[in-house]
Amino acid sequence: MVSFAISGNYTDLYEISMGEVYFLEGRDAISACFDYFFRKIPAEGGYVVFAGLDDLLDVLTDLRFTAEDIRFLKELKFDDRYLAFLESFRFHGTVYSAKEGEVVFPGCPILRVEGTLLETQLVETLLLNLLNFESLIATKASRIRYVAGDRVLSEFGLRRAHGPGGVLAARAAFIGGFNSTSDVYAAQRYDITAAGTMAHSFVESYDSELEAFRAFARVQPDSCIFLLDTYDTLKSGIPNAIAVAKEMEVRGQRAAGVRLDSGDLAYLARQARRMLDDAGLSYMKIVVSNQLDEHVIKSLLGQGAPIDVFGVGTHLVTGQPDAALDGVYKLSMSGGEPRLKLSDSLQKVTLPGIKQVLRTIDDKGLFPGADVVTLTGEAKPDMMYHPFEADRSLFIGHFRQEPLLHKVMENGKRLMPASLLKDIAAYCAGRLALLPAEYRRFENPHTYKVGLSKGLLELREKLRKQHKASTDESPVIDRHSA
Amino acid sequence: MVSFAISGNYTDLYEISMGEVYFLEGRDAISACFDYFFRKIPAEGGYVVFAGLDDLLDVLTDLRFTAEDIRFLKELKFDDRYLAFLESFRFHGTVYSAKEGEVVFPGCPILRVEGTLLETQLVETLLLNLLNFESLIATKASRIRYVAGDRVLSEFGLRRAHGPGGVLAARAAFIGGFNSTSDVYAAQRYDITAAGTMAHSFVESYDSELEAFRAFARVQPDSCIFLLDTYDTLKSGIPNAIAVAKEMEVRGQRAAGVRLDSGDLAYLARQARRMLDDAGLSYMKIVVSNQLDEHVIKSLLGQGAPIDVFGVGTHLVTGQPDAALDGVYKLSMSGGEPRLKLSDSLQKVTLPGIKQVLRTIDDKGLFPGADVVTLTGEAKPDMMYHPFEADRSLFIGHFRQEPLLHKVMENGKRLMPASLLKDIAAYCAGRLALLPAEYRRFENPHTYKVGLSKGLLELREKLRKQHKASTDESPVIDRHSA
Repeated sequence: MVSFAISGNYTDLYEISMGEVYFLEGRDAISACFDYFFRKIPAEGGYVVFAGLDDLLDVLTDLRFTAEDIRFLKELKFDDRYLAFLESFRFHGTVYSAKEGEVVFPGCPILRVEGTLLETQLVETLLLNLLNFESLIATKASRIRYVAGDRVLSEFGLRRAHGPGGVLAARAAFIGGFNSTSDVYAAQRYDITAAGTMAHSFVESYDSELEAFRAFARVQPDSCIFLLDTYDTLKSGIPNAIAVAKEMEVRGQRAAGVRLDSGDLAYLARQARRMLDDAGLSYMKIVVSNQLDEHVIKSLLGQGAPIDVFGVGTHLVTGQPDAALDGVYKLSMSGGEPRLKLSDSLQKVTLPGIKQVLRTIDDKGLFPGADVVTLTGEAKPDMMYHPFEADRSLFIGHFRQEPLLHKVMENGKRLMPASLLKDIAAYCAGRLALLPAEYRRFENPHTYKVGLSKGLLELREKLRKQHKASTDESPVIDRHSA
Repeated sequence: MVSFAISGNYTDLYEISMGEVYFLEGRDAISACFDYFFRKIPAEGGYVVFAGLDDLLDVLTDLRFTAEDIRFLKELKFDDRYLAFLESFRFHGTVYSAKEGEVVFPGCPILRVEGTLLETQLVETLLLNLLNFESLIATKASRIRYVAGDRVLSEFGLRRAHGPGGVLAARAAFIGGFNSTSDVYAAQRYDITAAGTMAHSFVESYDSELEAFRAFARVQPDSCIFLLDTYDTLKSGIPNAIAVAKEMEVRGQRAAGVRLDSGDLAYLARQARRMLDDAGLSYMKIVVSNQLDEHVIKSLLGQGAPIDVFGVGTHLVTGQPDAALDGVYKLSMSGGEPRLKLSDSLQKVTLPGIKQVLRTIDDKGLFPGADVVTLTGEAKPDMMYHPFEADRSLFIGHFRQEPLLHKVMENGKRLMPASLLKDIAAYCAGRLALLPAEYRRFENPHTYKVGLSKGLLELREKLRKQHKASTDESPVIDRHSA
């Protein structure tokens, strides 16, 4: 059977190359700390939902280089001593993380990995691969949930998903607020409700639509959703669905609903609702699908379309319009020393040291819109400082402050069993409920403030000055600024 | 180890539900034929590169429902007789397909699956999942290759890819014209050259950039590409790279190059080139990365930037701007009868019957821009007809005509071993070379014409009229048109 394994070689070559240098130069066991964070919120939204943590911890727990991995690395001419080391490699690092389902913001460390320089470096690519994608999709799903109210949302995207990435998309969509998935494998793997209707091909394969609906009703009386638009929704689909639903009533059965998959969904939903109601079938639900996203759903509901269930595929599972979260994994400590990357752009300078994030909570228990990044061990800060504009600060002493990062793995071992997916989804919904509406709206949402503590700001400035001094000693003239 | 298997349950629930109806109603063994085609070219381009075929044939060859799959389907209350059937299910269908790497156009069948109604339906989702995604990425890669000329292109996207979808992205990128991938797992799985440099964290983990470069050069003298922008590209990165490259020369070694990953890449590449040349290091290559796509690369090269290697990640592996190819899988025959789906929109009416696609070739051996869809067994057509506008036709009798669909699997068995990926890539490059430039440009490319043969047009019209007649008998009034 064809499968994709997240083994040691599920990574970028440079991680393994850098690892070889560390190993052969005796630096592999130096202590190190990396932060995971992102810079830009997808879809010009106001927040990101953090997802993928449980998958990541599973991968880290079981991570190893297979015999086949080692054989391939040997072909790539890696050193035999290093390969012998990789052969018995296990991840023994410690991970601090925001809870999965947390609402998070740009520039804030969401997760940090502590361990040896070699092991913390080696896991970079797989960590980014899992967290960036699941967070992207959970965020998208939460936007769709926001406009859908308490209507049913089902993830229908496997056919347009990026190969097996679709399985992770189904999981992340559930975290962001979806009720079910069409993807049987994801349903099985992650304990999500599986859902589905019928395809046009099913209807076409019979000599008439009526026959097709009758056959489906005979075999699937408990989950009978008739697809209406194979030939003509109003002239043929609905009348045939009504006829078969009435036949089911005679047998003491109730058809679950109808599905609209093309045309003017608002208009057709209204017509279908009226025709079903007129036939005494008010219990039948209306399911719609076809290139839906949060904007189309908002528009449909704004027009009063009587829709009960939305099946959302392509735009959800591909995370349109951005299709990627730009999360990065940056070194903040090594060999006991705080580290940073400089940049011509201050926005790309990283935050050194071992850090905690404190979320402020107001007296109503809501998020007033300020997270502060501190050095661990610093006292509770009364002020936070703009990360790039030194003269801007904010008093936060009157807010309650909650640490976002918790130790979830120690010495390569999970500290708690995996959460139930529904508990992660419930946590996500609860946290989103604390985020005021101005951060959740789609058009120019409010900017949630992320600031630095005084201690962190001072450490970053000290290191910047040190690097600047050593660079300025260089004899090379910068012809750009000259 | 965490892995993702493409087993029987890697599908949408409705495939399994429809299968149950077919099975319990004794229709599972009825013959059927499905076509795979797409409607819209991503990125408003002029063509699509077809990819994913070899992966699909691998999956079909090995497809089975695992014991765990069956256990889960039992929980979902599928019928025991049906589950017993699925337990021993193997795909025994026959597949006709365009060659992998073929240049293809909207509305043309690219692949067709013949077999029993049950088996052809069950494979829909996994087929779409693989072909849509790989074709999307191969197309994107070919656009990047088009502007990059013969410069080296390396796929760097795993960290922003959609989970394990990144592995397929690396394969598809190679088909579309990339030279290498950073993804070790994909390199191993698909025999692609693995490539990589170093990360900022590597440089930061040393007390100085110079030390970091020296350590890398000691251990990796044969593939030494120095990352320049950890602190300051021109003041620090380049001078240190030059210093270490000169030290390597003393040892008889040659550094491979430098990498620019931020800032004004055109300007920095020129400066770096000049500084390297001035130091007698003309053999060192310039690699750039950072949010590249075909438009940025075109712009960089248009400015004369002396870049040798492009590392392309996010925009490539997510298939931006569309992130999905809208490929569908539609029933064209069942029980020996041609089938079609109607629609209010003529564009969404499907093509009935068992079909071949003929590509026209002009006397220079190039593609003049006309594919014709015929019924198998029809004589070579002299005319092709616009699929939606009956009065538009085109004389094609003077062109050579090549069939695009070839039998690649029979009774569930491949007819040929898997192609080497480099042969698929070479085929793709060869076919793209036959496509005139007006179909390849990014801005309003020429529309490649896809027409129908007379026989196919007549069959479709006959079936449409039959369905219309039977629908018009319905007593329900269409309140929309009234």
